[in-house]
Amino acid sequence: MNQGPTSPARPRPQQLAAIDIGSNSFRLEIAELSKGRYKRVDYLKSTVRLGAGLDAEGMLTDEAAQRGLDCLAIFAQRLQGFGTRQVRAVATQTLREARNRNAFLTLANEVLGHPIEIISGREEARLIYQGVARLQPSELPRLVVDIGGRSTEMILGHGRTVQSAESFRIGSVSLSMQHFPDGQFTRQAFREAQIAAGAELEEALQLFSRAQWREALGSSGTVGAISHILQASGITDGSITPQGLRWCIEQCLKAGSLEALNLPGLKADRKAVLGGGLSILYTLAVHFDIEIMKPAKGALRQGVIFDLEERLLAARNHRQPDPREAAVRELQRRFNVDMDHAKRVRERAAWLWNGLQPERPRPAVGDESALELGWASALHEIGMMVSHHDHHRHSAYLLGHVDAAGFSQSQQRRLADLALGQRGELSKLAERRQDRRLMQQVLCLRLAVILHHARTDLPPRVARLEAGRGRATLLLQRRWAEQHPRTLHLLEQEASLWSRQGDRELAIQLLG
Amino acid sequence: MNQGPTSPARPRPQQLAAIDIGSNSFRLEIAELSKGRYKRVDYLKSTVRLGAGLDAEGMLTDEAAQRGLDCLAIFAQRLQGFGTRQVRAVATQTLREARNRNAFLTLANEVLGHPIEIISGREEARLIYQGVARLQPSELPRLVVDIGGRSTEMILGHGRTVQSAESFRIGSVSLSMQHFPDGQFTRQAFREAQIAAGAELEEALQLFSRAQWREALGSSGTVGAISHILQASGITDGSITPQGLRWCIEQCLKAGSLEALNLPGLKADRKAVLGGGLSILYTLAVHFDIEIMKPAKGALRQGVIFDLEERLLAARNHRQPDPREAAVRELQRRFNVDMDHAKRVRERAAWLWNGLQPERPRPAVGDESALELGWASALHEIGMMVSHHDHHRHSAYLLGHVDAAGFSQSQQRRLADLALGQRGELSKLAERRQDRRLMQQVLCLRLAVILHHARTDLPPRVARLEAGRGRATLLLQRRWAEQHPRTLHLLEQEASLWSRQGDRELAIQLLG
Repeated sequence: MNQGPTSPARPRPQQLAAIDIGSNSFRLEIAELSKGRYKRVDYLKSTVRLGAGLDAEGMLTDEAAQRGLDCLAIFAQRLQGFGTRQVRAVATQTLREARNRNAFLTLANEVLGHPIEIISGREEARLIYQGVARLQPSELPRLVVDIGGRSTEMILGHGRTVQSAESFRIGSVSLSMQHFPDGQFTRQAFREAQIAAGAELEEALQLFSRAQWREALGSSGTVGAISHILQASGITDGSITPQGLRWCIEQCLKAGSLEALNLPGLKADRKAVLGGGLSILYTLAVHFDIEIMKPAKGALRQGVIFDLEERLLAARNHRQPDPREAAVRELQRRFNVDMDHAKRVRERAAWLWNGLQPERPRPAVGDESALELGWASALHEIGMMVSHHDHHRHSAYLLGHVDAAGFSQSQQRRLADLALGQRGELSKLAERRQDRRLMQQVLCLRLAVILHHARTDLPPRVARLEAGRGRATLLLQRRWAEQHPRTLHLLEQEASLWSRQGDRELAIQLLG
Repeated sequence: MNQGPTSPARPRPQQLAAIDIGSNSFRLEIAELSKGRYKRVDYLKSTVRLGAGLDAEGMLTDEAAQRGLDCLAIFAQRLQGFGTRQVRAVATQTLREARNRNAFLTLANEVLGHPIEIISGREEARLIYQGVARLQPSELPRLVVDIGGRSTEMILGHGRTVQSAESFRIGSVSLSMQHFPDGQFTRQAFREAQIAAGAELEEALQLFSRAQWREALGSSGTVGAISHILQASGITDGSITPQGLRWCIEQCLKAGSLEALNLPGLKADRKAVLGGGLSILYTLAVHFDIEIMKPAKGALRQGVIFDLEERLLAARNHRQPDPREAAVRELQRRFNVDMDHAKRVRERAAWLWNGLQPERPRPAVGDESALELGWASALHEIGMMVSHHDHHRHSAYLLGHVDAAGFSQSQQRRLADLALGQRGELSKLAERRQDRRLMQQVLCLRLAVILHHARTDLPPRVARLEAGRGRATLLLQRRWAEQHPRTLHLLEQEASLWSRQGDRELAIQLLG
């Protein structure tokens, strides 16, 4: 483990921490942002090589899992004193793939003391780009490439705006294991590795073609390592060029094997994945006409920190929306949501939710549960694009799988559960019943949907929700309820549904 | 069973037959169309009341299933001599719901000798409208309502064009069972049945509001029966009015029970579902301001026959597209499909498919498997709207659940399997491996996707598929293949995938 500079005993409240649980390395970065300036406070890195620990069945081996947990235990020590909102841990391709990820995540969350979120490949790409765009600003349209252990991200962007982002299932660890399993370098192995990489990347040829960008940056360990070699050997100034890459490959072929390879600037922990990394990089250079690629400042972990900062700013300042709000609006547009109805249900659900919370002058700012309920309400009908019939199931499917900038897969799973629970039987949420917050969110969303089932506006004060011991009470204005017998009928059905469920009760009470 | 007029011993080739497997009745209609004119040849109907045979767990009881099979056996006798393309059998809400429908369908298909397709509620609505629009044309914007045994369809249309169509899970059988279980008529029971119906229909208030249409038609048995009563009693001329409905309800209340009820024009087989039917119809009249509803000519079965006719015309005449083609194009638009690529893959798949078929001067017209392959190719990327990652799975989900006019749920399931099989492991189709046609379609689609993986056009003749005993051979132009090593690499991987699967082989051969 490379230890960074001295670690202050107690974190200052403006310090933010990002943990990148990658397929090759785990990284912890602690930084402070003031007036948009990024100041690194600490950086820890460990070559866990989690991605090499996936067996043929896609199961994470016990050894690899243990290496990961040991590393997280060290990160956890460093993170003592950090509040929930100061830390975000994200995991990428290996945990996206591992079939036994939940078992690992349960242990890992406990060891780390902070939840680990799995993010999608595109979200990873977006965060990488944010990291690079903020730490190395430029006005030129650019291609950013990140070769990870088991996936490669490509992003086309301009300024801080991502234009296209894709993630490909090819990485330095997986390609090295496939084509250089015993550490032997042969021309044939390089050729086959390049064909495999090319086949995977070829469908991106048009999307990221040379005409779209003016500079190319590489943000990963692979790029850094090869840049080091080229510079230390005096081949280039650290820029990566097709000639330089060919030279590296020739050095590998001359040495014949990893063991015999001795290149200036090559660190021991990079050796094992050099063959795969070189093959991907050379394939990229040839396919996308990259004459010069510079190593980038900024990577996934910094992108995570900038995102975290924006969330905190939004939580403190009502006028600044949470960064995820933009994705929610984009999804509403993409799936042609009835915006008036979404707004109605969202406001109603928020109003009911506030009634459930312990007394406070106003709802807690930046309450993630309230934010989630708002997003689930805004998007509860996106499944209508598929079919009116069973639209709640389609909404759940879409929310669970759609590309949504800023959201982790874990949080999307939660939004999907909320959408699924918006109507119908409660038994489908049986596995989540112990999650009290989730069931409260479900209750608010369902009541909001019922109150607005005629798709019309209503005065906010016709209904209010109150929490009691193991029960919630919906207080309705008597006159309004009497004028709306069908709504009352549906609400009574709803109350009986909750009581049949057993451990929670919903009472309906008429007031005034 | 009401027997129609004399049945000719041998059907003429222009005769078409539709079977409507409804929740209350099964119906067989045989008709001839010449120059657009509809001539009924025969009509059989049996009150099977399949929908009353769903138990609390949503399982079809053995008794109800047997009643259904007995009826289908009679239909099958009448259909002797009819070719596959002359018959279409569709099933609606009860089989949409029944959890053991597959067991029933297996038996039913065998008894009937023709496949039974389950159609979605919206597709049912669309077909009903087509039946009415063709048999009772009008230039007025109209509302068509069909109260079925377990669902109610509402359609807003103009001429032959459907503007909105919805299906609601409320019907004469299910509502009668819930609110008039013992055949007693009370004011309270009618009130509760109307509230339940209103709650279900209320969300449609705006979509089908009074301002949208100029005439209202009812196409179901319920509407026909009540129209008969009102006419026979001299209350109206057969039109259904709020006053007439109130009069009917009062007669029920006066009688107090089904047994004591004796209304002129009321047939015995309608009695049991009168309470539910009246409640839905009265609720509709009040909610949607329907002052006069006329019984419609035309219903689901005629819509099916008109659809069948259009399919046959398209199969015989290349310039007339199959009616389902419009839905495919609409889905491409709705899900923002890359049309150039869809066209490429569709043409390539069709070309490969033709190579596999036994020698003929040209491909069989109206070959449903070829049509399906074309549609699956046109839509194989609709999942990209959800996410690039795993888009084949999203495409499969969407194809399985989306509203697609003209398609049955059964056929959509098949398109979904094709989309799922477009790439990745073959093991996910393990359950379908016995279906030789499907596996051939999958092979053609996969090869088309691989050949065009760089998303560019290719001359048609670079690749050709040939069938042999238990194996298919892909013949590639040698020069082209040598210039495209990555495509060749992917094709070789594909060949090894099929050989690992065991019972089928794909060989790659270079020619020239």
